[in-house]
Amino acid sequence: MSWDEVCENSVCPVARSLSVVGDRWTLLILRELLMGVRRFDEIQAQTGMSSFLLSTRLKRLEKAGVIEKQLYSKRPPRYEYHATAKGRDLDEVILLLRAWDMKWGGHPAKAEPAVHMTHKRTKKVIDANWRPAADGKPFSFDDVEFVLGRKYSAEREARRIAFRASRRGE
Amino acid sequence: MSWDEVCENSVCPVARSLSVVGDRWTLLILRELLMGVRRFDEIQAQTGMSSFLLSTRLKRLEKAGVIEKQLYSKRPPRYEYHATAKGRDLDEVILLLRAWDMKWGGHPAKAEPAVHMTHKRTKKVIDANWRPAADGKPFSFDDVEFVLGRKYSAEREARRIAFRASRRGE
Repeated sequence: MSWDEVCENSVCPVARSLSVVGDRWTLLILRELLMGVRRFDEIQAQTGMSSFLLSTRLKRLEKAGVIEKQLYSKRPPRYEYHATAKGRDLDEVILLLRAWDMKWGGHPAKAEPAVHMTHKRTKKVIDANWRPAADGKPFSFDDVEFVLGRKYSAEREARRIAFRASRRGE
Repeated sequence: MSWDEVCENSVCPVARSLSVVGDRWTLLILRELLMGVRRFDEIQAQTGMSSFLLSTRLKRLEKAGVIEKQLYSKRPPRYEYHATAKGRDLDEVILLLRAWDMKWGGHPAKAEPAVHMTHKRTKKVIDANWRPAADGKPFSFDDVEFVLGRKYSAEREARRIAFRASRRGE
């Protein structure tokens, strides 16, 4: 039995959702988009994907209606990637995965969060206990203020540097 | 850059969670457990995994503290699989993936849901709009009554039959 039979062609919505989201890279790409990273090279630097793999996955997500591309340079043609309404509806899933790992992932009790998140309107801290309907509205990262923690900031910068270095070596 | 570097060793809890959940099979296995399917053969029949793949994934999930096995037969030794508290904390993620596909997956407006779900205490229907904190409590499938829809029931029965037939052919 193939993955298609078990997931894409199932009537079970959990299985069907996994035909998009069950790809380990999808939510990582969406994480970059919601952090405001929009360009191919930058997404590549932060996810560690090969350009072939990233290109394939972006096309698949576009076909699934989860992301869309917008031309920002005509010559050469260059695109920025944005989550669609369908893609942004996965914000809640990403929020809960964040909460799950903050609770269970063995982080030291007083560890700085990778990203400090506060709700723009209420100024409440969005931590492991925050839930989508806490204020009666669907959750969206558009309503969140991000401040990168020191360690995570360094981690991302190290990836940027490594990526640029690998490019020069190409 | 390897998946380990980007995910397991990251400080980002989203990336770290994907080192467990980003495997396309993990949530499918958890779906079976929350439906009360506990035994290796039955999980295999419903996920279409090879015994080698399922066995590897179950071991990995056990190591990650997401599931645990319980001996139900001594000779030959046979185990049942259960989600731990850490695993059951992914119920909310699975609920939201269900909701996401029910909303965006192109289901006909009046299609019967794959599984009818009602909240045991409140008797409310759990549909695409239901959210974890709707009643101020963490969501758990333990609080849900399931009735399989006709189509999904047939789909599962067809898998059981196909699996048994493939076994006889082995």
